[in-house]
Amino acid sequence: MRTSIATVSLSGSLTEKLTAAARAGFDGVEIFENDLLASPLPAEEIRARCADLGLRIDLYQPMRDIEAVPEEVFDANLRRARHKFELMRRLGADTVLVCSSVSPDAVDDDALAAGQLARLAGLAQEFGIRVAYEALAWGRHVNTYDHAWRIVEAAGHPALGTCLDSFHILSRGSDPRGIAGIPGDRIFFLQLADAPLPAMDVLQWSRHHRCFPGQGGFDVAGLLRHVLDAGYRGPLSLEVFNDVHRQADAGATAVDAHRSLLLLQEAVGAAELPPPVVPTGIAFAELLTADAEPVTALLAALGFARTARHRGKPVDLWERGTARILVNTGARDRRDGTRLAAIGLTSPDPAGAARRAEALHAPVLPRRRAPEDAPLDAVAAPDGTELFLLATGSSGASRLPDWRSDFADLPDVPEPAGTTRIDHLALTQPWHRYDAATLFHRGVLGLDARESIDLADPYGLRRSRAVANADGSVRIALTVGAAPADETVHAAHIALATDDVVAAARALRAAGGRLLPVPDNYYDDLAARFALSEGELATYRELGILYDRDAGGAFRHCYTETVGRVFFELVQRDPGHQGYGAANAPVRLAAQHTRRLLR
Amino acid sequence: MRTSIATVSLSGSLTEKLTAAARAGFDGVEIFENDLLASPLPAEEIRARCADLGLRIDLYQPMRDIEAVPEEVFDANLRRARHKFELMRRLGADTVLVCSSVSPDAVDDDALAAGQLARLAGLAQEFGIRVAYEALAWGRHVNTYDHAWRIVEAAGHPALGTCLDSFHILSRGSDPRGIAGIPGDRIFFLQLADAPLPAMDVLQWSRHHRCFPGQGGFDVAGLLRHVLDAGYRGPLSLEVFNDVHRQADAGATAVDAHRSLLLLQEAVGAAELPPPVVPTGIAFAELLTADAEPVTALLAALGFARTARHRGKPVDLWERGTARILVNTGARDRRDGTRLAAIGLTSPDPAGAARRAEALHAPVLPRRRAPEDAPLDAVAAPDGTELFLLATGSSGASRLPDWRSDFADLPDVPEPAGTTRIDHLALTQPWHRYDAATLFHRGVLGLDARESIDLADPYGLRRSRAVANADGSVRIALTVGAAPADETVHAAHIALATDDVVAAARALRAAGGRLLPVPDNYYDDLAARFALSEGELATYRELGILYDRDAGGAFRHCYTETVGRVFFELVQRDPGHQGYGAANAPVRLAAQHTRRLLR
Repeated sequence: MRTSIATVSLSGSLTEKLTAAARAGFDGVEIFENDLLASPLPAEEIRARCADLGLRIDLYQPMRDIEAVPEEVFDANLRRARHKFELMRRLGADTVLVCSSVSPDAVDDDALAAGQLARLAGLAQEFGIRVAYEALAWGRHVNTYDHAWRIVEAAGHPALGTCLDSFHILSRGSDPRGIAGIPGDRIFFLQLADAPLPAMDVLQWSRHHRCFPGQGGFDVAGLLRHVLDAGYRGPLSLEVFNDVHRQADAGATAVDAHRSLLLLQEAVGAAELPPPVVPTGIAFAELLTADAEPVTALLAALGFARTARHRGKPVDLWERGTARILVNTGARDRRDGTRLAAIGLTSPDPAGAARRAEALHAPVLPRRRAPEDAPLDAVAAPDGTELFLLATGSSGASRLPDWRSDFADLPDVPEPAGTTRIDHLALTQPWHRYDAATLFHRGVLGLDARESIDLADPYGLRRSRAVANADGSVRIALTVGAAPADETVHAAHIALATDDVVAAARALRAAGGRLLPVPDNYYDDLAARFALSEGELATYRELGILYDRDAGGAFRHCYTETVGRVFFELVQRDPGHQGYGAANAPVRLAAQHTRRLLR
Repeated sequence: MRTSIATVSLSGSLTEKLTAAARAGFDGVEIFENDLLASPLPAEEIRARCADLGLRIDLYQPMRDIEAVPEEVFDANLRRARHKFELMRRLGADTVLVCSSVSPDAVDDDALAAGQLARLAGLAQEFGIRVAYEALAWGRHVNTYDHAWRIVEAAGHPALGTCLDSFHILSRGSDPRGIAGIPGDRIFFLQLADAPLPAMDVLQWSRHHRCFPGQGGFDVAGLLRHVLDAGYRGPLSLEVFNDVHRQADAGATAVDAHRSLLLLQEAVGAAELPPPVVPTGIAFAELLTADAEPVTALLAALGFARTARHRGKPVDLWERGTARILVNTGARDRRDGTRLAAIGLTSPDPAGAARRAEALHAPVLPRRRAPEDAPLDAVAAPDGTELFLLATGSSGASRLPDWRSDFADLPDVPEPAGTTRIDHLALTQPWHRYDAATLFHRGVLGLDARESIDLADPYGLRRSRAVANADGSVRIALTVGAAPADETVHAAHIALATDDVVAAARALRAAGGRLLPVPDNYYDDLAARFALSEGELATYRELGILYDRDAGGAFRHCYTETVGRVFFELVQRDPGHQGYGAANAPVRLAAQHTRRLLR
């Protein structure tokens, strides 16, 4: 029989995957949409590459959330499908996978699903394409293979068949004997995967994935209240089986563990801690480097001007609008490259914030004590980043904060048009400190933490979680790499807010700065997903601007080249948008790997 | 409130854990039994250490499978409990955790459970100890906190209370409001843990833990038969979302993937491969080293004699009984240390075995072509180990296999008493090749694979899976380290079978060899678990012999010091015993870390 493999099953760039599959003896591939979007190769070239390697493109996958939706939604879905069918024609792929809908828009109406799938198949047929409809095990209404087949049968369209996937069938414990009743020529595709059985077992969950209170999803405080109500007066004891803790330094884990119990006691009113003082803004980001030239050239291209110099240390202040970057050339080791070493957070009560941090075991750093220095409270985050807690200007007249008095002004530099501030900071955590970092930012700094999400990097999965204050003036994205050995530890980026990302990107280019190139395939997909005007799309394509949208509005962003372990992002955020461009992260990460490999 | 932490929550040796807990501000600890067993410190010294650190020992844990069992089983359980209560008196711990039984011996009889727990509490009371009974979420008959409390209430013994664990309660979605109805002074202990919610979700299972057919627990071949019966003639395609594959080299993953499909087709009769030729024995293990002195000294102490020298290569043959070790001094780099580089497997049809290996993508190694050399078929295993496929002696008269003709005999050396053969080999796999190794040994060599089990190393979890032929003459344990960066990659050990491990251990010592010291605490536990005679126990304690037993008999074993990346095990296996000493692995691994840190 012919053998095929989905590109998502392998690591690396699309080209690496195709080469590996062909060398191993596969006859074909399923091209996973994200692998195509992240590839710099146009569809025709991918087709040619596959042909050269002796690979047939057996499937393009997936289309999602197509069927059983209100008519106006389905119209938009057909528009999206037409884009993909055009792409598939360029690829020379003749079968598309459609997964059963998980959308909250989907209604439980098999006749509607069958009718819409038949219309989709009709459109596909015009392109010589077959539609293979598959039940996801977690589909909203259709989640068993026999249900998917009943809908395909009811649709009665020759270009519509079913796709069977051993994972979706066997993970639910469905009886596979019913498969023999489906006509073989209506099974358009078969996807095979095995899986370890205990992955779903509460015993495995218990023995490998426990974490400290406040790091997971349980209402541990609620449970503790019931126990205290019962009159329990014994100790609060942590029993946490966790694969990561088994490997991580015991001292750091114990500190994190004890912090979780302090916060838990505070949550149930059994302990009093200095109250949280939520930071109100990002005063500065401090870059540490042994060679300031590359990063200051980039800052200049970004419209920053060097405005002041520290009176006692080799530190320059660069400003644009209210975005402030300190460039500290006191790094000892040139090989470390430029890195984000410290963050200044403005606080309505720096001393109070420091007291809470100290009570919660955050290492308090020695206050700066040079004669001219304003005394600064500072603590270390779990990843080692120094956090300075800074008063906002105490004298009402000055827009400058107190810490600024340590700096001597340089001659005035004209500031470019377009104000800028720091939209967010993104910090890569050491692999074993991710949960600890969340607990720290939430518990010590009083920031809100979002759910952790997966980001597919070509060479491994990353996880990312945003922490922010209520008005979004402090936003930090905490990311953890794929593996302990990940070389991106301590990499960071600084996202600068702009009112007009197109103008900002053009200005950067005009000033000699370089933007991260984004593959054309990404923009073809953008055209399918969003009804952007031709001109808008062309501009984004020209500049490498990425686009996302949620209920609160749009998010437009692009990236600079990387200097040492730091790069910058330009962000145009609609006021209501709460995201960080996660949907675009796989494309961005792939593009950064491409650049890195070219260097 | 007082805070406490279970030692299992932290990484490292017991001393490291206690120090970390005290430094972080904990008031007490739960001592996890395995941490104590693996510690070289006697109970009194652990007690003193805790006191010095300001830590109370709040709980000793756990006792398992105590209650609701037939009377004669319960008598043995009480005997075991008495040992543990004596230990707890030495530790100064006054509360013991008893988990609800998971044993198949347990019967669903709350009155029996209550009665036996009351008797256990009565015994505990004599030692000034309280028993805290906890429902495990996967307990056989008792798995909710309210059920455990009903049994405690029915038992009505003052030294019996309940232990609540947030994981066991919240993972099952139990309503915690019932806790308020339990008298607070009968809640003897509270264990807290959080957990990420999606760990049990089929979506997460699907997106992170799929594997190739034959590597997991699904009956993929059974499903495929139904699909073929339906008349499907399309490709077999792999769609495998797997966190490890996302990081691992695409080329190796693709080869492994294609191999899985070839084996799947063979399983359903859709492809013909050269049939498996199961190896019938381990002809030799080959050690590669730049400095033969340390390992040959150890071999000599183990009773091996150098019997022959290769005619064309710097390779010596060492023999004892039918155990043969080749010592190859052709290693290029002295820093690599001594390592297990190759294995000779006897085969009824070496050429046929090699044909199957080649058809299944195992890299075929160049045949040895030196004039005098017997041509040898060899393939590379996924971890890089060279596997030589060897005919057993073709001339009926000679007990020597053909490959032996490459070696020139050395003068006869008297062989020590007690025959020896290789019981098993243990190979540490690169972290991303574990599933591939299983599929290789199962599919290519035709060995049977056992379930993968977890082994708790002090610095991280390992997994291990045994592969073996039907009569146990070829046994290989495949182990994978805790993390990609694990330094034990390619570590291995050679287990030598002996009829009398005590005599073998004494002979090794007499010959100047060193055995791995095993903590006294291990032997105290052995006394509690098995009814061994005083003399037998004393001998094991003296020599560092570990003991295990299953339905098929006993398994006695001890370990040599480590040379480079290799050590030896002496094994006395009762004929029916199928294990490899997994129950003792945590103690052995901890002891090896202790030795390493002392060096």
